[in-house]
Amino acid sequence: MNDTVETHPTVRDLTLEEKASLTSGGDAWHLQGVESKGIPGYMITDGPHGLRKSLAASTGETDLNASVPATCFPPAAGLSSSWNPALIREVGEAMAEECIQEKVAVILGPGVNIKRNPLGGRCFEYWSEDPYLAGHEAVGIVEGVQSKGVGTSLKHFAANNQETDRLRVDARISQRALREIYLPAFEHIVKTAQPWTIMCSYNRINGVHSAQNHWLLTDVLRGEWGFEGIVMSDWGADHDRVASLNAGLNLEMPPSGTDDQIVHAVRDGRIEPAQLDRMAQGMIDLVDKTRAAMNVDGYRFDAARHHDVARRAAAESIVMLKNDDATLPLDAHAIAAGERRLAVIGEFARTPRYQGGGSSHITPTTMTSFLDALDERGVAATFAPGFTLDLEPADPALESQAVDAARAADTVLMFLGLPEAAESEGFDREHLDLPAKQTALLRRVAEANPNVIVVLSNGSVVSVAPWAADAKAILESWLLGQAGGAALADIVFGDVSPSGKLAQTIPLNIADDPSMINWPGEEGHVDYGEGVFVGYRYYDTYGRPVDYPFGYGLSYATFAIGDVTVDRTGANTARVSVTVTNTSDVTAAETVQVYVAPGASDVARPRHELKGFAKVRLAGGESARVAIDLDERAFAYWSERFDDWHVEAGDYAIEVGTSSRDIAATASVTLDGDGKSLPLTEWSAYGEWAADPVGSSIVEAVAEAGERGDLPKLPDNAMMRMFLKTMPINSMPMLLGEAGKAVTEFMLREYAARVR
Amino acid sequence: MNDTVETHPTVRDLTLEEKASLTSGGDAWHLQGVESKGIPGYMITDGPHGLRKSLAASTGETDLNASVPATCFPPAAGLSSSWNPALIREVGEAMAEECIQEKVAVILGPGVNIKRNPLGGRCFEYWSEDPYLAGHEAVGIVEGVQSKGVGTSLKHFAANNQETDRLRVDARISQRALREIYLPAFEHIVKTAQPWTIMCSYNRINGVHSAQNHWLLTDVLRGEWGFEGIVMSDWGADHDRVASLNAGLNLEMPPSGTDDQIVHAVRDGRIEPAQLDRMAQGMIDLVDKTRAAMNVDGYRFDAARHHDVARRAAAESIVMLKNDDATLPLDAHAIAAGERRLAVIGEFARTPRYQGGGSSHITPTTMTSFLDALDERGVAATFAPGFTLDLEPADPALESQAVDAARAADTVLMFLGLPEAAESEGFDREHLDLPAKQTALLRRVAEANPNVIVVLSNGSVVSVAPWAADAKAILESWLLGQAGGAALADIVFGDVSPSGKLAQTIPLNIADDPSMINWPGEEGHVDYGEGVFVGYRYYDTYGRPVDYPFGYGLSYATFAIGDVTVDRTGANTARVSVTVTNTSDVTAAETVQVYVAPGASDVARPRHELKGFAKVRLAGGESARVAIDLDERAFAYWSERFDDWHVEAGDYAIEVGTSSRDIAATASVTLDGDGKSLPLTEWSAYGEWAADPVGSSIVEAVAEAGERGDLPKLPDNAMMRMFLKTMPINSMPMLLGEAGKAVTEFMLREYAARVR
Repeated sequence: MNDTVETHPTVRDLTLEEKASLTSGGDAWHLQGVESKGIPGYMITDGPHGLRKSLAASTGETDLNASVPATCFPPAAGLSSSWNPALIREVGEAMAEECIQEKVAVILGPGVNIKRNPLGGRCFEYWSEDPYLAGHEAVGIVEGVQSKGVGTSLKHFAANNQETDRLRVDARISQRALREIYLPAFEHIVKTAQPWTIMCSYNRINGVHSAQNHWLLTDVLRGEWGFEGIVMSDWGADHDRVASLNAGLNLEMPPSGTDDQIVHAVRDGRIEPAQLDRMAQGMIDLVDKTRAAMNVDGYRFDAARHHDVARRAAAESIVMLKNDDATLPLDAHAIAAGERRLAVIGEFARTPRYQGGGSSHITPTTMTSFLDALDERGVAATFAPGFTLDLEPADPALESQAVDAARAADTVLMFLGLPEAAESEGFDREHLDLPAKQTALLRRVAEANPNVIVVLSNGSVVSVAPWAADAKAILESWLLGQAGGAALADIVFGDVSPSGKLAQTIPLNIADDPSMINWPGEEGHVDYGEGVFVGYRYYDTYGRPVDYPFGYGLSYATFAIGDVTVDRTGANTARVSVTVTNTSDVTAAETVQVYVAPGASDVARPRHELKGFAKVRLAGGESARVAIDLDERAFAYWSERFDDWHVEAGDYAIEVGTSSRDIAATASVTLDGDGKSLPLTEWSAYGEWAADPVGSSIVEAVAEAGERGDLPKLPDNAMMRMFLKTMPINSMPMLLGEAGKAVTEFMLREYAARVR
Repeated sequence: MNDTVETHPTVRDLTLEEKASLTSGGDAWHLQGVESKGIPGYMITDGPHGLRKSLAASTGETDLNASVPATCFPPAAGLSSSWNPALIREVGEAMAEECIQEKVAVILGPGVNIKRNPLGGRCFEYWSEDPYLAGHEAVGIVEGVQSKGVGTSLKHFAANNQETDRLRVDARISQRALREIYLPAFEHIVKTAQPWTIMCSYNRINGVHSAQNHWLLTDVLRGEWGFEGIVMSDWGADHDRVASLNAGLNLEMPPSGTDDQIVHAVRDGRIEPAQLDRMAQGMIDLVDKTRAAMNVDGYRFDAARHHDVARRAAAESIVMLKNDDATLPLDAHAIAAGERRLAVIGEFARTPRYQGGGSSHITPTTMTSFLDALDERGVAATFAPGFTLDLEPADPALESQAVDAARAADTVLMFLGLPEAAESEGFDREHLDLPAKQTALLRRVAEANPNVIVVLSNGSVVSVAPWAADAKAILESWLLGQAGGAALADIVFGDVSPSGKLAQTIPLNIADDPSMINWPGEEGHVDYGEGVFVGYRYYDTYGRPVDYPFGYGLSYATFAIGDVTVDRTGANTARVSVTVTNTSDVTAAETVQVYVAPGASDVARPRHELKGFAKVRLAGGESARVAIDLDERAFAYWSERFDDWHVEAGDYAIEVGTSSRDIAATASVTLDGDGKSLPLTEWSAYGEWAADPVGSSIVEAVAEAGERGDLPKLPDNAMMRMFLKTMPINSMPMLLGEAGKAVTEFMLREYAARVR
């Protein structure tokens, strides 16, 4: 082949029809190439926690879930609890290697939508209720995959926070909530890792479908953030080829066979030729980026090594919520020696739930259940399934067997969780409860044996408080991918200390969640009435009790956090330094979390927000000094008035801790602020004039003129001072008659003169 | 004078300049007349709980609070707890008589804005967190005043729910919340009592100042509700004469001397002559309506009788929150005979706080403190002021004296409350707490004497839970007007049984209030993020604990509520009948409350809503059968999709009780619904097609054609059924390829044919 021709075609080499053809897929899982011009139609497939290369595409298989075997890594629900971007990058690198073997140019993911409400049906494949955490974790997938020459598709841009009516729903969100909560994970990844593609969401935002949203796809994404890649539609999200292309959508997926609409629209002027050129050139550039990897032939990924990555990723995904009496870890030797009898209860131990349902469902290369892992370790245990993996009914025979097994054992490991039918892409959950038959069995098991350790499998939060008293220890293992059984054994028997931290709050009651008032919306819209107060931003600001706070997770080790210092590194930036010491004799990792707590502000700000974190692995007794930089954004809020980020001058508390509610130390930093101010007008309050550099001198001039008798003197009493402070000066004539009128006119005249 | 000329001028008799002149005031408290054409410039003054005829207007007095003496009735904070529209009408009649004496044509009020948040600075002059109660109580003022030929001004239209930034703030409110919460009190009063004037609010609603809001002042108020009166600006709320007049504002108050702007705008076409004619004719009509009352000379109102109305109104305003061990009523004879010693503690007993601050502050004709009332009754008591009427500091000498008085007494009546500085028009409160020095003294008094009865004086909710254990009984007396002392004595000594019911929830913690997330807004706007879930609509729907629920209040009597029946009176209307029995030997009144609890709905509806009430006065042992009609609106929600009210077919529970959380009996009614439906489109979900009369036959036709082989058969499995149910049919091609495309096209074609 001729490299020159093949690798550098541009839109200038293409006909109008060829350009148009690039803006839709070749089929449901391929780009549309222009082979004659050296542009191949590469394959793109679902992710995001492993490759889902549909068998249907190659074999005509009709089962949508049938796909080529690939390593099933922990979905984001698990991986997000690792707080370990380097590990996440490893996962990304491994996924890319599988793409190269399978000739897949782009793997669709990661999905970084915010878990606005834990009932959201797709929470299992999203990262966090916190945009900083979501962005700083998921970026590892993008960096890892793309480092191997394979593309990612950051999705679903933007505000796909529910499944209910997802194809139509209009998410009505304030600019501030969009900028502070729903967009920053996308923004961070775009700015730092340039994902080669972005997938738009199905929903509308403030009235406009994402595929047709020029503000979203062009003004913000490309204009403000500098995105250089292409935007594709979610499958079926493009309802108007012309409007979407004009808005900045490069690629319709799957193709609807309507490329001629683009051709006609260019001819009759509804699409500027330059806009089609931009969109088509983006597609050519994407093909060029992936060409090298797609030209690798005969590559085979190392399945065993990838399984090991999946195992390490799973181990770091497990969050230990409770460990009374140091019930964990278990002594494998004592069990193997027959000194301690272990019962394992719960079908999930044999038939793990390890990934979510819907488009992300992949076929693993191998599968290790917890029972398999016990076998591998030669640890004997009595197993009783206890229940079947559906919501109901209970099976009395299985239950009796389980209670008997519990009674005969010293320790019970009980696997509870949500069956597949309880959570999936396509619908939202209606409550947080585990199936009643599972918790009822737990009750009976706990009565038979007080030493119960619960292991949870679920893609999004389940209620823990209702049954927590029945468990001495609780491991929230989320969905762990194909190596979850082995990883759980690593934790349970103490080979690895738990280090997972909650990426979302576990509430006491879903009714506590402020989004419940507007969940999941009605009549085609959903109002994000809670604004920026999502997750811990609400609970911590309003002092509401929670079951387990954001960022929480126990360890077999103990840590001390101390010697916190904060140094200004610029007018509005700082560096936080902290010493972490492992005060136990167990090697383990702790995640230091930095929250910024603003002082007095013109707007209602969350009490504190996560703005930095570092996971530190330390041997027993070891210490490390950790430095975390806080950039200007760490202190900013989105001002609708300035239509921009704004850093206020003043004091900010810097909280360093191990969860949003376990703050070990607090320091303070004083910032200069960004100095932004708005011009004063007749609508500015007297108090705002007094606070403005120019306005304050005019307020002084008013007082001086009053003393001289050149202007009427403003009355000076408590009520008048209160009124004046908050009253726009155009109301002074109403309050003070001619005197007020004279003062207002003087102020406006002076201001016009001084700012000219 | 010539009646014919004087009483029937019309705009046709006026010049352009004269018409323009009618659209602003003559001065701050007068209309602008056209005397030569027989249109006088009558006076209008502040209310709303009595006449505030400023002395400044007639004597040049500069103290804004100085006014002609008038009966001070309980402000709405108190009166709203009466749940007695007939009594409220009596108050209105009395106020009108005072207006006639003082030659006041219009008294400004009532104010029926919703108490969105109890911190609102003007809650004391508003009625309720519930629009049904607010409308059905305040209508009594309008009916009473106008029955005497004097006008009212229903205010502040609309959504003045906070004082913070009130002159500028943009209240961003969903159409549904506006229609169901913030407008219905206005709507009910307009439709049933035609207030002669309405006063617009200062704030903006969804971006537009109320004075310039054509949707509000013309489309809704006049077009939908049939309002026949005039709209005036709140004082200084008109910032653009031309825009406001075009929007439907008749009258600028106070005048800014800019009538020439109206003249110019008519001349250059920015105002249609017909629009000025409508606005000016409204002013002439207003003058005509008030002319008869204003021509009455030498009338003197009966101050003693009005004081008695004020006393009865005050007695019905008092809510007994707690009465452990039947501590109340006190035995006046035993005290007079020296058998029981009474201590009265708290400066409020001597210096009552009986009205709120700001424009509503009036000068009473006489004033009865609780100490005065004791004197009148010849009941001896030790009085100790305990504290001064400010927020701080405590006075140790006063406190010791109070504790000594408590120790020496058998019973303590302790008057606590908010001093004037704590609440007023012009600012919002920042917390619900009583001054700390008062609750600290209560603690000490309760230690000295366990028999403490607390009497509260406050214009809006104060927290009760923090100190309730220190009181055996609690009377929430709000602000009671000039006869409050006597009314309190009536209650305390058992001449009258308490019958007040809370018109707003007393929460445990202000952080529980869902509006707190968006209170009081920022950067010039406030998002009503809680939508329709205001007050008990939130607390009861989400099962949140409260201190005292909406509608709550104790009595000296006991009542039984039974034999509840509900009869359909139409397709979507019903009559509720209930028997109330006084099961004690004490004459007293009970308020039967009817809440409608919708069943399954397409939208998120409050668990239940007040839709009827009746206050029934019964002698001991007496029974009464009460009938309450529920109109169609009682079952409707505002549909943004239909842009109209919508009654769904189905079951509705009818709850009858004595508070929102004391439901004595529940019945059920099944309604036909209003039959509204939207046309089906490609954006309608498959499930919506199946639920539609026409669509369902097409869905059947699809199945039949599939059986015949004329159309592809839709796959039939659980996931497909789930997807199909919620998916707009324009997504079927994406999901099912050519088969889906064929089905979608068939459905749209059939629908077009069948609805043609």
